[in-house]
Order: sequence, then structure tokens, then C-alpha cells
Amino acid sequence: MSANVFERVQASFAQQQFMSTLGASLAAARPGAVEITVPFRANLTQQNGFLHAGVITSVLDSACGYAAWSVAPEDATDVLSVEFKVNLLSPAVGERFVARAQVKRAGRRITVCTADAFAMNGADEKLVATMLATIITMNSTSSKVRKIATVPGS
Amino acid sequence: MSANVFERVQASFAQQQFMSTLGASLAAARPGAVEITVPFRANLTQQNGFLHAGVITSVLDSACGYAAWSVAPEDATDVLSVEFKVNLLSPAVGERFVARAQVKRAGRRITVCTADAFAMNGADEKLVATMLATIITMNSTSSKVRKIATVPGS
Amino acid sequence: MSANVFERVQASFAQQQFMSTLGASLAAARPGAVEITVPFRANLTQQNGFLHAGVITSVLDSACGYAAWSVAPEDATDVLSVEFKVNLLSPAVGERFVARAQVKRAGRRITVCTADAFAMNGADEKLVATMLATIITMNSTSSKVRKIATVPGS
Amino acid sequence: MSANVFERVQASFAQQQFMSTLGASLAAARPGAVEITVPFRANLTQQNGFLHAGVITSVLDSACGYAAWSVAPEDATDVLSVEFKVNLLSPAVGERFVARAQVKRAGRRITVCTADAFAMNGADEKLVATMLATIITMNSTSSKVRKIATVPGS
Repeated sequence: MSANVFERVQASFAQQQFMSTLGASLAAARPGAVEITVPFRANLTQQNGFLHAGVITSVLDSACGYAAWSVAPEDATDVLSVEFKVNLLSPAVGERFVARAQVKRAGRRITVCTADAFAMNGADEKLVATMLATIITMNSTSSKVRKIATVPGS
Repeated sequence: MSANVFERVQASFAQQQFMSTLGASLAAARPGAVEITVPFRANLTQQNGFLHAGVITSVLDSACGYAAWSVAPEDATDVLSVEFKVNLLSPAVGERFVARAQVKRAGRRITVCTADAFAMNGADEKLVATMLATIITMNSTSSKVRKIATVPGS
Repeated sequence: MSANVFERVQASFAQQQFMSTLGASLAAARPGAVEITVPFRANLTQQNGFLHAGVITSVLDSACGYAAWSVAPEDATDVLSVEFKVNLLSPAVGERFVARAQVKRAGRRITVCTADAFAMNGADEKLVATMLATIITMNSTSSKVRKIATVPGS
Repeated sequence: MSANVFERVQASFAQQQFMSTLGASLAAARPGAVEITVPFRANLTQQNGFLHAGVITSVLDSACGYAAWSVAPEDATDVLSVEFKVNLLSPAVGERFVARAQVKRAGRRITVCTADAFAMNGADEKLVATMLATIITMNSTSSKVRKIATVPGS
């Protein structure tokens, strides 16, 4: 996936209907790094009027999955989130939010990514959450494994 | 919060606009255990047409937060998700999904919950994800701490 | 690994020199469940005189790895810990400690285990920690993957 | 803890008998960052002769706890590990190992740290594991909380 990383990630991202439901968009994708933004919207909030942790987690997860995908071998057919951990660091208060994922360790099968989420108010950015995620890369010979993991950004 | 646990949880749940956006509903709440259901909807999917992991995580997170809330001391004012880890065990394929959270260890300040998510097809249930979560309980004297953690189910 | 699960686990456990350094022993092993015990010893403590979290984590990790191994396919050659999360629930104060691991979801490649650690004082048991772990199963054709994960209970 | 961070950390580290059992030593401590090294020793290995994951986790945990301690308020009396997650990225093969922890987000109560572990062979370093950890800071008025969390580096 050396060339046209953004286009390839965007093509898959556009199929994630949940990202559209959140109003999220792909902001950047290059080998090993992906950014996704999501605006503040009242219909994404929890009981105190802040963005629900699930919204932040959703864009962190998709960003990690696509970061892993951006460095996957040519014969990769898909990436699956095996698991992730999120620490919520500050209330998600802002006009919009950005999730920035980086590949920490890419392997033929298992890739580990980290991602930070920031609340943006004008030019200010504030760290609100951080993720550490494990992603498995599928190819045509491993498709049987699909049943034992779960789907990417899924 | 001994009496009317369901009513108290439901009152807060109704204020989580994101739960409404997901079509989620509170199915059960008793001391130490909460269930939330969410239907399959096309606008909640990832690229393969399965429920996005973020949707499953969102209901697992809210279920854990409310399970902690259901056993919080009388002087508690709020609960905040400090962090959680999710393992995605099978593709989230089903007509609807249920997140079932239980309190593993309740403390005056820190409460730890586990939760499982199941895909439901007719009468069949299949385990699709599991969460281990840390929640902090706030009271009026700890409200200053709010700034260093994040908001409940948030 | 249907027959002689205990013997097969014990054979590998005996090779983990670190378990011997901790004074740990294999207490039980049956398909899908493994128990490891470790005594209190002054040389395993942290600054307050309680068992160091690393000791508890070590026996939880080995217990999870062997629980996964106990249900691995016949052609499995090894199991590797991909990652784990531990919540420390109470100070590790006791005469001895037991880690009890169970398989939560066994797959051809990825297996997820949970484990609890208890402090034991006479006949009393107190929950002190809990783990959620991801293990990868290796076979002869996947040995190249060894480089991208880490070694079992490792 | 502005002055003499190293001395204050070293004083506590010296009381962690388990660090001595591992042969670990404090390599660096400044506000927000702590390094601990551990040599390869046969009595710290798992079944394949590599360092046991529990050893790596133990030094990562102590490094995170002391990084949090290095930035704790003047009235702090202790720090407790609430939970941590470790990803094992490569087999722990090396002459010695170093765990490097950094504070990601310091709060009055909850501090989040990240840490990486590297295998060292001569001048070469290789990333073998990474941790994301949650630490709670205690002071004299919060000592009652001790019972609901766990002990530092513990």
C-alpha cells in the first residue's frame, strides 16, 4: 500500500456508515499515521453534555485500524481490531475533536498502534484520551481466522 | 441508591443523547448489574456491514458506568470512566445486541466492572465482546477532581 | 491436548525458571482452566511490604497462557502472550496467593482469557487483582509470526 | 518533589525488595520520567529461555509508578497502581533491558503514564514491550482510599 495511501483508506472509510452517522471525516492518512476528526454535536453527548466516551473511542479505533492498514503487506485483505484500551484524560469539551493514530510496531500478523484524541477550540488543542490497540492483518490464506477475531474498526 | 435503582439509572440514561442516537435502551438495572440493548442498524456499521466496534464499546461503557453508579454511596454525585479495555471476540452480526455489566469490585472511590456484549438472533445469543473498566465515583468534596478524569460514560 | 493436560502444562511450567524464582507452583490444570499459587516471601515485596504487582501479574500471565495452551489444537507448537491488562483491586496481603485463569473465547489463532488473583489467609480468600489477556497460538506454519509477537507467559 | 527527585525515588526503590530479587536498578529519575534497568538472568526466564513477560511488566510498572510519584503534589504520601495494560511486541532477548516511563497526564488524583521496554545488545536497542498505566496519588486525607485500590508498584 505504498502509493495512494489516502485514497485506499478513504475508500474503506467511506464504507463505514457509522463514521458518517458521527459526522466524522478522514483528515489525513500516510504510511503509519491516520487522523480522523469529528465535530461536537448534541446528539453525540452523555448526561453532562460532553461528547460520549464511545464517540471518542470509535474514532480512535478507526484511526488505529487504518494506521495498521496503511502499512499492511501487499497481500493483506483486511485488518481486524483484536482489542484496545482507552484512558479518558479530560472531559471531551470542544468544538471538534481529532484522533491521531500511529503504528507502534508493525508485524506480518499483529500490529500495535497508539492514538491520542484532542479537543479543539479555535487554535487550541487539549489531550482528552489515549488508546493502545492490537490489530490483526488478514490475507487470503488467513481468512479462516476471521471467525476468531472481530472486524476492523469493528 | 438502594431503592429505585432502575428509575435513577433511567433518569441519567435518558440524558445521554448518544444512546438515543444509537437507538439504545436501558433493559435492566439492579444493584451491581446493568443491561443495555442496541438494535442492528445500517447506519451503525463498519466497512463489512457489521456493527462498528465503537457502537459495542459505547453500550458496554455506559453499562459499566451505570453498574458502578448503582452501588455508589449515598453522597455520590457522579461516576466517571477512568479507562476501559475491550476485546472483540467475534464479528458483531445479529438482529440486536445486549451489553451486560457487573460490578467486580466496588470501592469508595474506585470501582471496577466487567461487561460482556452478545449478538442476539431470535433466541440465540453469541458472545461478541468483553470489557474490563475502571470507574471513579465523585462526591461533593471531590468535584475538583473532575478536571483530571473524564466524564461518566464519557 | 485432551488427555494429560496437567502433565503437559507441568512439563512446560517446570521450564519457566522465573516461576521457580518466585516459588510458584502449578496447582491445577484442566481443559480451559489453570491455577498457579505463589507464597508470600519478603523478597517479592514492594516498598510497603506487600507483594509487588509484578509478582501477581507474572502468575496471572502464566496461568492465562497455560489456560489457552490447555485448549489449543493438536498441531499447536506454542502460545504467545500478545497483551494483557491487570486491575489491582486490593493490596496483595496474605500468606499465599492463587491465580485462577479461564478461557473466555478460544479461537484457532487468538484466544482470550480472564484470570483472578486471590490472597489467602488460612481458609479466607480475598480478590486482589483481575486480568484480561490475549494469547496467540502458534503452529509449524505460523512460526514466522514468532517474530511479531512475544513469547508465552513471556 | 521538585528537588532531589532521583534521591526520593531511589529511597523508595531501595525498599522494593522484589526489584533487588530481579537484579533491577534505578537508572534515571527526573520530573515526569523514570528509567529502570534489569539484566538478563537465567532465573528470570520462561520456557523458551527468554525473559518472562512478568519481569518486563514488573519493571515497567515500577517505572510508571515512580514517574507519577516524581510529579506528585507536595502533600502526596504515596502512589498506587490502579491498573495497567502491556503489549508484548518482540521476544525479550538481550543482555539487559531498560524500562522508560513518561507521565502522559498528571492530575491531582489520577495520573496516566506510558512506558516502553527495550532489549539492549551492546549499543543496539530493540523495543520489546509497551505499557499504558493508571496511577492514583494518595495524601493524608485520602488514606482511607487505600483499601479500595492497590499499592504502588504493587
